[in-house]
Amino acid sequence: MKDQSIPIINHYIAMIKLEIADKSSGFIEEIAQDLIADLDLRVVKRISHTFHPKGMTLAYILSESHLLIHTWPESGLIHIDLVTCSYRSKKKFESSLKAIFSEKKIKSIEIKSVNFD
Amino acid sequence: MKDQSIPIINHYIAMIKLEIADKSSGFIEEIAQDLIADLDLRVVKRISHTFHPKGMTLAYILSESHLLIHTWPESGLIHIDLVTCSYRSKKKFESSLKAIFSEKKIKSIEIKSVNFD
Repeated sequence: MKDQSIPIINHYIAMIKLEIADKSSGFIEEIAQDLIADLDLRVVKRISHTFHPKGMTLAYILSESHLLIHTWPESGLIHIDLVTCSYRSKKKFESSLKAIFSEKKIKSIEIKSVNFD
Repeated sequence: MKDQSIPIINHYIAMIKLEIADKSSGFIEEIAQDLIADLDLRVVKRISHTFHPKGMTLAYILSESHLLIHTWPESGLIHIDLVTCSYRSKKKFESSLKAIFSEKKIKSIEIKSVNFD
């Protein structure tokens, strides 16, 4: 039986490999904004950091929990960590990502979910 | 066979329930600092947000990836999401948490890990 004192925690992690790496920071900011809009997330605070020689991290505190995005442009890899305290289906998360990344040509996408009972 | 283009991504998620909830924001800041020191993490940026009526989120961008902590003081719950691009064992993560929270009396601790092959 589920412990009623534990809040709903939806946790999805996506690892996306793109055909062609986009090294611009603007690209991943746009992806993040599109995902936030499509999943109806509400941002309360945001920070980002550009790593040298390459790679970027975007961190959003949401009213629903958090969205973290890391990029490895040298490998065309993007890691997305989304925790929300309100329900979004894994199918919706995946379809949003596929739509948002459509022009970038996804080579592979793998999504994991984390559940505490 | 592991895809060599995927970087090491150590991802642990802990859900901790304390015997007695501590509603102070200072308490969770101290916990975060102790964990950062004990796991030898390097913080590059940090934000936090206090929710009303209660609850707090701390977000750290690390040189190794990220550390996110959410609290639900009304339930004595703490959710810790740690992603690092350098290896730390699950055993070490768990023992660090148990040591850091020792005075707060942990009622339960559950740790999940996420792996992409």
